[in-house]
Formats: sequence, C-alpha cells, structure tokens
Amino acid sequence: MPFIHDDFLLQTPAARCLFHEWARDEPILDYHNHLAPRDIALDRRFENLGQLWLEGDHYKWRAMRAAGVPERFCTGDASPSEKFLAWASVVPQTLRNPLFHWTHLELKRLFGIDELLDPQTAPAIWENANAQLQTPQFSARGLLKRFQVRALCTTDDPAQPLNWHRKIADSGFETRVYPTFRPDKAFLSGQNSEWKSWLEQLGAQADIEISTFAAFLDALEKRHADFHDLGCRLSDHGLAQAFADFPSETEAAAIFARAFQNEITSPRESAQFASFLMLFFGHLDAKRGWTKQLHLGPQRNNSAKNFARIGADAGFDSIGDLPQTASLAAYLNRLELENALPKTVIYNLNPADNYGFASMAGNFQGGENGGVAGKIQFGSGWWFLDQKEAMEWQINALSNNGLLFHFIGMLTDSRSFASFARHEYFRRVLCNLVGRDMEAGELPPDFEMVGAMIRGICYANAKNYLGLETG
Amino acid sequence: MPFIHDDFLLQTPAARCLFHEWARDEPILDYHNHLAPRDIALDRRFENLGQLWLEGDHYKWRAMRAAGVPERFCTGDASPSEKFLAWASVVPQTLRNPLFHWTHLELKRLFGIDELLDPQTAPAIWENANAQLQTPQFSARGLLKRFQVRALCTTDDPAQPLNWHRKIADSGFETRVYPTFRPDKAFLSGQNSEWKSWLEQLGAQADIEISTFAAFLDALEKRHADFHDLGCRLSDHGLAQAFADFPSETEAAAIFARAFQNEITSPRESAQFASFLMLFFGHLDAKRGWTKQLHLGPQRNNSAKNFARIGADAGFDSIGDLPQTASLAAYLNRLELENALPKTVIYNLNPADNYGFASMAGNFQGGENGGVAGKIQFGSGWWFLDQKEAMEWQINALSNNGLLFHFIGMLTDSRSFASFARHEYFRRVLCNLVGRDMEAGELPPDFEMVGAMIRGICYANAKNYLGLETG
Amino acid sequence: MPFIHDDFLLQTPAARCLFHEWARDEPILDYHNHLAPRDIALDRRFENLGQLWLEGDHYKWRAMRAAGVPERFCTGDASPSEKFLAWASVVPQTLRNPLFHWTHLELKRLFGIDELLDPQTAPAIWENANAQLQTPQFSARGLLKRFQVRALCTTDDPAQPLNWHRKIADSGFETRVYPTFRPDKAFLSGQNSEWKSWLEQLGAQADIEISTFAAFLDALEKRHADFHDLGCRLSDHGLAQAFADFPSETEAAAIFARAFQNEITSPRESAQFASFLMLFFGHLDAKRGWTKQLHLGPQRNNSAKNFARIGADAGFDSIGDLPQTASLAAYLNRLELENALPKTVIYNLNPADNYGFASMAGNFQGGENGGVAGKIQFGSGWWFLDQKEAMEWQINALSNNGLLFHFIGMLTDSRSFASFARHEYFRRVLCNLVGRDMEAGELPPDFEMVGAMIRGICYANAKNYLGLETG
Repeated sequence: MPFIHDDFLLQTPAARCLFHEWARDEPILDYHNHLAPRDIALDRRFENLGQLWLEGDHYKWRAMRAAGVPERFCTGDASPSEKFLAWASVVPQTLRNPLFHWTHLELKRLFGIDELLDPQTAPAIWENANAQLQTPQFSARGLLKRFQVRALCTTDDPAQPLNWHRKIADSGFETRVYPTFRPDKAFLSGQNSEWKSWLEQLGAQADIEISTFAAFLDALEKRHADFHDLGCRLSDHGLAQAFADFPSETEAAAIFARAFQNEITSPRESAQFASFLMLFFGHLDAKRGWTKQLHLGPQRNNSAKNFARIGADAGFDSIGDLPQTASLAAYLNRLELENALPKTVIYNLNPADNYGFASMAGNFQGGENGGVAGKIQFGSGWWFLDQKEAMEWQINALSNNGLLFHFIGMLTDSRSFASFARHEYFRRVLCNLVGRDMEAGELPPDFEMVGAMIRGICYANAKNYLGLETG
Repeated sequence: MPFIHDDFLLQTPAARCLFHEWARDEPILDYHNHLAPRDIALDRRFENLGQLWLEGDHYKWRAMRAAGVPERFCTGDASPSEKFLAWASVVPQTLRNPLFHWTHLELKRLFGIDELLDPQTAPAIWENANAQLQTPQFSARGLLKRFQVRALCTTDDPAQPLNWHRKIADSGFETRVYPTFRPDKAFLSGQNSEWKSWLEQLGAQADIEISTFAAFLDALEKRHADFHDLGCRLSDHGLAQAFADFPSETEAAAIFARAFQNEITSPRESAQFASFLMLFFGHLDAKRGWTKQLHLGPQRNNSAKNFARIGADAGFDSIGDLPQTASLAAYLNRLELENALPKTVIYNLNPADNYGFASMAGNFQGGENGGVAGKIQFGSGWWFLDQKEAMEWQINALSNNGLLFHFIGMLTDSRSFASFARHEYFRRVLCNLVGRDMEAGELPPDFEMVGAMIRGICYANAKNYLGLETG
Repeated sequence: MPFIHDDFLLQTPAARCLFHEWARDEPILDYHNHLAPRDIALDRRFENLGQLWLEGDHYKWRAMRAAGVPERFCTGDASPSEKFLAWASVVPQTLRNPLFHWTHLELKRLFGIDELLDPQTAPAIWENANAQLQTPQFSARGLLKRFQVRALCTTDDPAQPLNWHRKIADSGFETRVYPTFRPDKAFLSGQNSEWKSWLEQLGAQADIEISTFAAFLDALEKRHADFHDLGCRLSDHGLAQAFADFPSETEAAAIFARAFQNEITSPRESAQFASFLMLFFGHLDAKRGWTKQLHLGPQRNNSAKNFARIGADAGFDSIGDLPQTASLAAYLNRLELENALPKTVIYNLNPADNYGFASMAGNFQGGENGGVAGKIQFGSGWWFLDQKEAMEWQINALSNNGLLFHFIGMLTDSRSFASFARHEYFRRVLCNLVGRDMEAGELPPDFEMVGAMIRGICYANAKNYLGLETG
C-alpha cells in the first residue's frame, strides 16, 4: 500500500465515510494565499520541480537549515536541480513534520508518484515530474483547474497596480482570481524614506497627489474602491498585535504631517497612527460588505544577519507571545460602537491564544437585528499551525467556544501552486476528527446531519459568507 | 440506541465500571453556583422550558448570536415559546459544542426525552416538557432532590440581605443551601456613586454606619460572621488578576477617605485598595476555617454597546491573557507570611495557564505541622472550560502537577436548576479519562484502588475539605 | 502481570518493536543533571532507600506536603525510615502523577521489586531494598554501570573547586563524568555581600585577584578554560527570562564598579549587567565549541516563609508566565550578529511556550555555510514537564516546528542516582508516540527508517552534537 493511499489519515469508518462522501469532491475556494497573479495571468509553466517547490517555500528552507544545509541551496544561487537534491536529502529527516506529508501528498496528487523522496529516489522523481511539468495541465491555470479551484484571493499592496488581476479578469478564466487589500505599508515604517516612496506609488495608482492626510485617506479609499471593482471582498492585516491606541483624526493628521516632513515619530505615535488607519480600514470594509482578516502574533525577522542578507519572509520568523486579547477586543469594540464592524476573521499564530481568540469571536456576533451567521470567525490554523496537531486544536477550540457549523474552513496561505493539496489534507484531518467523535458516540450517528456540516466547511460556508463570485 | 445512553462518553470497559459502580450514584455537593436562593425558598415552579432554559443562560445566547439570531430572542422581549423555538433552530448547529451534549442530557434526565432537539421536534418536546414541569417533582426543590443534591452554595453580595437563605434554613429543607461571601463591589468601582450606595447597603445590613475605613472593615467582618452563622464556609472572588500591590493600613485608609469624599482614585490606588481588602478577606476566611475561591482571568464586558444595552453577565465576556503567576504567588505568599492563608481554590479561565496554576498550588501546601490534604486546590474547569476537552486538560494538569486523589471535583457555576446534570457529565469525563489509563496499563488494574479515588472526587473529598453540613 | 512489565506504556505493536529493537539497549548520555560529583568520586554507598530517595527530591516533598504530611518528614529531622514510611503512605495518593510511575519503575529496575508501594508493603520493601543497597553494584558507580551511562554532566559553579571531578577523571572510571559551567551567581544578586564573597571564591579558584571588571572577566574566562580542560562542553543558565538589555562594555564596567563598592544597583542595571555577561558567556562557549543550555521560565522561591526556613530548591518553585520570545530572540540574534552563537539548547518551563520556543529554534539554524544539524535544539520536557503528557507535547511541538530527527533527547536533570530509569521512561513515551503514528499510517511502515531516528534520539544524536568523549 502506498504511503498516500485513499484512506490516508482517516482512522475510522465514520471518518472515511465523511471524507469520501461529503468532503473529497467539494470544490475549493482559496480565500487567502500569496500566489503571484502574474503567474496566473501568463499561465506560467514550471520548468522543473525545483522551481515549483523551492522558489519561495520558507517552510522547506527552514527544514533544510535545521538539517545543516548551506544557505546556497535554500535562497542562494544553486541551480534548481541542486536545490531539489538538497531538499531530497532532507526529506527523510522530516519524519513527523508536516513537510513529510505535504511532499508526498503533492508528489501523489500532481504526478501520481508513490515513491518516498530520498537521495536514492530523487533522480527518477526529478525526471518523471519534470517531464509531466512540460504538459499543459501543469501550467498555473492547469493546476487550478485540476484542483477544482472555483475562486482564489491573492494578497496585494494597494500601492501596486492591479494589471495582472485585470488581465486575468478579462481573459474569462473560469477560476475567479481576486486581489485582497493588504495595506501593511501604510503604517509608519520607522524608515520615512521607504514610507514616503510607498506614498508616492499609492498616489500614482490612485491618481491623487498625496501631500495631506486627507489626500492620503482619499487615495486609500480610492484603491479600496478599485479593488472592489475587480471583485475583491477581503482585506488582510498581518500584525504582531492589534492596534488599539486611538487618536483623534486631528492627532492622526498631525502625526502624518510630521512624518511627511521626515520627522521621526515615536513608537507611541506610530501605534496611534496605525490605530487610526485600522479604524479607517474597518469602516471601508464595513461599508462595502467586505470581510476583514486579522493575522495576529508573528515575531518577524528575528535574525538581523539574515534579514540584511536575504530580506523578509525568508524563514526567519517565529511565534510571538505578546498579549492579544485586550487590544483585539478594544479594536473590535470600537468598530462596533461606530457601527462599522465588518465580518472579521481573527487568526492567532500562538496556539496558547486559541481559547482567547475562539471565545473573543463570541463577543461580537450577530447584532441587534441578528445578522450573518458566524460573523466573527475564529480563523483556520495558520503558518506554523497549518498541520494536523494544530488544525485539530483550532477545530476543537472553535467547536467548544463557538459554532463549528458556520466555519468557513481552510485556505492555503501559500506561495505555491502545488499547495492546493493542503485543502485535501485539512479535509482529511477534519473528517478524521469528527468521524472519531461519531464513533465515540459524541456526535449522533447521522451522516446526513454531520456530513452536511462537513460539506459546508469545505466550500459552501466560505462561499456564502464571503460573497465572492465563483467560477 | 438513544444519543444519551447508559454508557454515553464511556469508551472502555474500565471507564464503564468506574462510572457505574463508583461514580454514578454518589450524591452532589455543588459548592459554587449562581442559583437564586429566592427560587429555592419559594420552591419555584417553572412554567415552561423557555423559562427554565433561556432566562439567564448566556452560553445559549452566545450560540444563538453566533448563528445570527436577533437579540430579541436572546435577552429581548420575545415570548418564552419564541425563544425556545429560536434555540431549537440553533441546536443542530451546535454539533461539537458542549451545548449539544448538555441540551440532550438535560432533556433525557429531566424529562426522559430521547429525541434530538431541532425545529421539527421542538413543538412536541415543548408540550411534553411543559406538561411535566407542572408536576411537583419539577419545582426548584423537587429538582434538587431528584439530583441528590445534599448541599449547595449560592453566590451572594454581603451588602444584600440573607433573608431567603434564612427562610430556607428555617424550612428544614433537607438539601442544605448556603450563601457564599462574594464582596466584588467592595473594591473601588471607578464610579464612586455606585460604590457609595453599595456602602450604604452594606452598612444597613451590618447595622453599622460606614463613614470611616475602620467602620467599613467592621461592617465587612460583621457580614462575614453573619454568613458564617448561616453555615457559609466559602468566599469567592472573580478577578481579571490577583491583586498584589499591598499598601499599609494607613495608606488604605487614606485611599478610602478620599474615595469616600468622592475624589477620583488612580488605577494604582484602586489596585492597592483592592489588595488591602483581599488580605483582609484572607484573614477573615483563615480565622473561620473557610475556603477561599479565586476565579482569575476573565476579560469582561468586551462589547460596550451591548453592555450599555443589556448589562453585565449577558454573554459578552471572554478569556483574557493577562499574566497571572507573579501576582497570585505574591498574594498567597503574603497571607502565608501573616499566618492567614486559608484553604484556597485557584481557578484559571485561560487554559494556557493550567500548568502555571496547577504547579502554583504545590508551593503553598501543607504547613510546618502538615495540615489539610490538598489545602490549595487547582479548581475545576470553569466557564469556557466546562466541557470535555478542557475538563480533561484540567484533570491532567492537576494529575501531573499535584494529587488528583485529593481533588474536590465539580461544581456547576450555573444559574439553572437543570444544570445539575453537569455533575454527571463531569463524572463521565473523569471516569472515561481514568478508565483509559487503566486500560492502557498506566494505572493498576485495581478497581478498589482507583474507584475509591473516583468516589472521593465525586463527593467525599469536597465534603471533608469544605467542612459544610450536608443533608 | 506486574504493573511495570516489558511493554509498560507501549500500546501498539509498532511501539513495542521500536522500543525493544531500537531503543531499549542504547546506552545513556545524561548531559544535564545535578548529581554530586563527590558521590561518584567516593563511590558512595547508600545506607537505605530513604537516603537514596528522599534526601533531595523536591518532587516527592511536594507530593507529601500536598497530602498534608508535616515538613519534618520532608526536609526535617525525621529518620530515613520515618521519611520512607511517610512517603510510602503517600504513594497510593499519587495515582496519575509521574511519581507513581517513577517510584515503581525504580523499584523494579533497581531492586526487581514488583509490589506496589503502600503502607502495607512498605516494611518488606524497605528490608529488601536496603539489603540490596549493601552490595557493590548499588554504589554510585555501580548504578551508573548498571544503567549503561557512558557519560554524564553535572552542574557546577565556576567559583567552586573541581577537585572531585579531577579525582573521577584520574580514577579511570569508564563512565565519563564532566562538569557543566553554570555561573548563576555571577549576576548581581541584590545582596552585594553574597555576590562579593562569591567573587572572592571565584578569584581564588582562578588565581586572579578580582578588583576590576577586566579581572572579573579574566577569572570567568580562566575557569571556562579549566572546565574545558576537564572535558566540559556545556554551559547552563537557569533564568526567569533571557536577559537582553545590552549595555556597552564601559557601562557594564561602571555597574560592576559601583556594585563592587557596595552600592545598590537598580533592577535595570542588574539586568544590563546580566545581559552583558550572557553575551560574554556566549562568546566563550562559541569559541570553544560548547553547547549552551538556557532553562527559561521558573518562578522561584514563592513561599518566603519556607525559603527562610529551608532555602532554595526545596519544592517551592513553580511555572512562571513571563513573556519569553522577544528577549530570547534578541539574545540569540545578538550573538549571531557577533559571530558568536554557540550550539544552544532552549528549554521552556511553561508548556504554553512550547510552540514559541520550537519555532524560535528555526530562526537561527545552520548558517551561511551550513553547519551543525539541529544547531539550536528545542530542549526536552523539563521539571514539571518531565512526564508523559508534557514529553508528548514537547516531542510534538518539535516534530511540527522542526526536525525531530536531530533531537538530542532526554536528560534526567536529577539529584538521584536512581533517576536514570527516566531515560527508559522517556524512550517508552517516545516509542509509544511514534509507534502510534506508524500504526495510523502517518509514518511509513518502515522500521529501519523510523527505528534509526529513534536510536539517534536515544544516544547517538547527543553524542555527535555535544562532542563529549564517552566511556
């Protein structure tokens, strides 16, 4: 029996029934990832497995570094085949790490390869996979079709053009591809020159000259509208903590003015400025019926040496332990008071925060006149939590503190077109967990009832909740 | 087989033996809940299931809001039957939430109803249950007898009269009903007028005119004695964090005097004032051999809009993440140094604090001359943790960091007379967990040995530890 | 079947195969413990089980106190036999606590005793064990041989002489015994007189008169070299949090000078002084290829009354909840920037920090030119985490966030020669966990592949990583 077989991760009959009859064939709505829209617009072909797998995957780089592999084979100038061989030598050392599962699940689903990857099998796998990659069904769009992706949302800077997104939209491609509004760089960066050149780009995209705070806000609003016109219905923020030190608009404008004059702002002022903007973004999202995503808790760029050498998002981030619940509540509360609380997904990176976040969602549900079911979502296990153990924790925390029934489920958060197999991974974990409950008599032995919940989590809940057009 | 059957949650033969032979028939000592003594004094009858279930249950309200149900059906002016139907429509959406288990366990134990509640079954269940509620065994006292409750402790403000408690005591009701001393409002509230009107009520109850700090302490002491006379042996405090910024008595008196003159006190002064009082309460409890309960960690009233509209305790609280261990140790240490450390139960609301609290208890056990076994208790899973997953965590944390053998076990913490079924729920979880250990060979296969521990946790440990008279 | 049988804790066929064929017979490298080198040098005989078990074991003392046993039987003047009987009476109350397992595992492995310890069996077990303790294979060295300990590392103050270590080295004892450099007292203690008398001892050992900061550093360096000459390859620090408030050398020298003049230093200055020293120690370790251990997170001496009466390390410490990840990253980052990051093992005491620490390790692995596999280790479950539940958490956190394959595994951290049985305990837990994955199809059914990983974790990884000579 191959390692990845039909019942992989499905340990009980109930789990197998749930997966095969209710989950497996559902399409995918990948509402948060980091794919390059250019690749989809140009329907990119991948020359080889090195390119597909190792171009931007910091999970793999971290594993390679932990195995003592020189940086040259991670982010350096080694050839794709050298990088692939280096990775193949590390795979047998990843036992019990999700990479071991993902690697073999991707080999199986993309290429029908059953062998375990290691230095011995690497050459044949390289040849086999690369040959298949030359065929049309392995282009960016081919892969999206193969995985039944009905819609996906990339992550986009409002100061960048949306031309690739426009091109995709114009092409009539059946998988709908949307940008997500992620204005991380709007916050004062501590480096005024970087921030100001970003302001210039933003102004250029919005066709607004940004020299006042009002113009700055106008430009952001304009871009929000532009994103909306292209079908975008989500924003996203990646923050160490929620910002909740709210200044008046006058104070925020004064901070803007000083920063615009290249004066250094204090940490407090920067936090106030960010707090103001986060409220502003909340209003925009609420007004247009969007869903706001808050990814809270990373501690980024821990290695200054490698940040200087390689830059951000290269595998030198980890899980922080800042307090979260007070500032998160303050932010959501303020928006609610201003009648501007959008649908919101709160994601925590530290699993110690699971119960705090899951119970937090319950404070801001519904509304006087009822409303969207599951309006505040406790988001899917993310980044370091994107594996079986932590997915189970997230599902359990949500189940015990809220309504799993309305969960909008999985997203890949990935930079790779091969990663859509992780939806299958998530579904197997979900069905295994829920199936176990059925076998243990903790859920009724009613597959119509439980299966309908599973099916909703796989696709329909996200579709209904997010309000995105799908292909 | 009905969903709630004899072996519900009991997955192994050992678990079933432990539950049926050692746990099931033990009586109940519910040493912490929020029942209204008035209801017991007047032996209240419940007109319908809406009244019994939805009058004050913020767990259900939160689930309803998360399902998008308008507030009218939660805390609003909808009729009991409308509220019941709204709840029934949400029940099928609570799969994997403890409400799904509690709801059906209560339907079974109270009314012998096996159907799962949903919009289709709701009308018949409504009729059936309401008819039964008209019979005497469904009065407040009838329910207490049915559940074999030998004693229970409500939660009481020392500024309120104890007349209902006195009436119950005088009635010779076999279930003993005691107040618990919970002086939350003694702390400076930030709203002097509210605090001062509370002082007046306290003074009236104590028959002491409170215009000085000394008189304030006298009144508190007097009420403590009054509670003691009615059989009370527990105090309780619900705090975000333990207070541990200890002022001298002179400083505390000065803060009192300023607050009494309607001056605003600083946050630091308020914390110092509370710290002083917490020491004072510790001395009172130690002197009279009481048990002090510390419920630490909620983040309350997160939604200002709903707090203004509906008030406190309405389902807008969640789990906080403030640091706990330093201040908790400082408080317990200070009492120990003053030879005034009472028996104490420490409850944490954030499960991330489980090991910190469980290991904290071990710092202050025993005493030079030995003493009460399990003097400092790591308290039962509470509020958001009052479900299978979190009960198991609490039991495991206690087991690994202390002596489960001396655990005083479960309490309902509930506002509902139907909730005593949760003792059964807890016992099933406990027996399932411990039975699993027996099956796995992690405990000796000796039912006399292990069963005796189980039995103690169900009832006898609490009875011996708390020193309450039981019926 | 006795309680401790061949397959104790091994619940699946795969677990049993992994343990018996890959783990059981591996020797031991106990790279961190608190054994007294004097006992090994003099090949101490233990007169009785009371001496062997209760002389310094604060785990047992805590359990006894929690059971209400007077302090006299813990740290007081009761006789060894009285203490043993007191302990025996508590053992049946430790069900589900690791002490129940450890106690019976040690009775079995050391003495071949199968009876469960309780007040009835205590007298016969006392006689039986004490008789065996008189035989040579029960001396300190006899026990080390019996447990196949190839090398061990004690924990040593650089201001103390290494004479016992020298004596052991000279004796040609086949088990290699090394000191570990643990300079806790180098930090300003808040009690200048204690610190200064420590400086004097340090100076005497280093043969350097310490009256300047430079001489202080020279003496530390000299002792580091002395330790190295005796084969030491590890340092160790036990801290509530990593120090990361780095002063310049000039500032550090100024703080030294003031403290040396008996001036009181502020908390900030003490932290800066410690931060400087921690960098200095990092440089020393990196220069000599040592491994640095960081034990982070205890909250010590919580009971002032018992600290005054009994002193430190007597069972009045617990798990703290200070933030950890920012300061830990800052410390490791600074060393990396100075090209002085040694191999490092990071241990957390609060299990809520598991994922933070496990993911932190991944930030500082490898290096430009690759390097040691698993250079930054997420350390074994420690102290309160030294039991099945928490070992599984640690192994899972490491597996999911790093490479379990390169894990250097277990250490006893113990003061007792009986504790080497805990390596067996750890191996059973490890094999049970990994075996379960094999049975569930989450790992390939390839015992050569998975067994090799297990074997490495038992012994070879530590040997290769630490670079210690073994017997």
